[in-house]
Amino acid sequence: MAHSMYQSSVATMSRMLTNLSGFLDKAEAFAAAKKVDPTVLLEARLAPDMFPLKQQVRIAADFAKSTAARLAGIEAPKYEDNEKSFGELKARIARTQEFLRTIAPAQVDGSETRDVSLTIAQKPAVLKGEAFLHNYAYAHFYFHVATAYNILRHNGVELGKRDFVGPM
Amino acid sequence: MAHSMYQSSVATMSRMLTNLSGFLDKAEAFAAAKKVDPTVLLEARLAPDMFPLKQQVRIAADFAKSTAARLAGIEAPKYEDNEKSFGELKARIARTQEFLRTIAPAQVDGSETRDVSLTIAQKPAVLKGEAFLHNYAYAHFYFHVATAYNILRHNGVELGKRDFVGPM
Repeated sequence: MAHSMYQSSVATMSRMLTNLSGFLDKAEAFAAAKKVDPTVLLEARLAPDMFPLKQQVRIAADFAKSTAARLAGIEAPKYEDNEKSFGELKARIARTQEFLRTIAPAQVDGSETRDVSLTIAQKPAVLKGEAFLHNYAYAHFYFHVATAYNILRHNGVELGKRDFVGPM
Repeated sequence: MAHSMYQSSVATMSRMLTNLSGFLDKAEAFAAAKKVDPTVLLEARLAPDMFPLKQQVRIAADFAKSTAARLAGIEAPKYEDNEKSFGELKARIARTQEFLRTIAPAQVDGSETRDVSLTIAQKPAVLKGEAFLHNYAYAHFYFHVATAYNILRHNGVELGKRDFVGPM
């Protein structure tokens, strides 16, 4: 067995999206128990010039989608940013995972040497698949998943490291 | 070229540690400019039952160290948790990166099928190298790097996504 680009990207990110959806379950239950308008959490930010929770979730899901599509050399579907509830955000995650399931391991395995074209800091760039995944995609993806978690923890939602890492 | 476990783990985490050290540079400059005791930032947390910045940095560095050591099948050095300044925390990161440099790619490449023994939720567990890296090590490592970033952003330190992702 060789180290698989599919496992490193599509499978790993899909797994983290399940964990992210779990944070939203706990956030929704927290809001109901505390009689807090869910919008308060959906719009919560850690700094005035950081994105609120709802946008952190969308961007995390979008990085999973675009990373998989770029490595597979296919077009990613576009989703509108119009979710207004935990249920809609969880549906966005589920839809993203459905897209990920349409990608076969063989489409991504071997992509470590494939050219990936993207725009970095407003400039076109070409990276090999492996460098794209390690130096770009992971950092963006995990950043948004962790920031969603941190926004909720900062607001009192009872999440633990096990929710972040997921069942082993 | 095959997808390299060394690149996926040691190289990727060392690169992120350089970015983490960069957050501390900016935090140190921020504290000096605002005439804020650096301890205020070093002890800052996002929730009362989350670790403060200094511990987030230590744990991030320790996950890089232990991930590399486990995949290489060697013992990781132990460092004491006694840093009291940004300079000492940056030295901890640099020392961790020095250790990572002692590990040759050949020691880690091929470790995707190697058994890795660890303790998960107080129980002994054995994972294959690839699953250990994807399902356990990445989530822990990126969580602590992102939480260090989020603590600083929440406290007003001017960091941007480019500081997190690093130069491309």
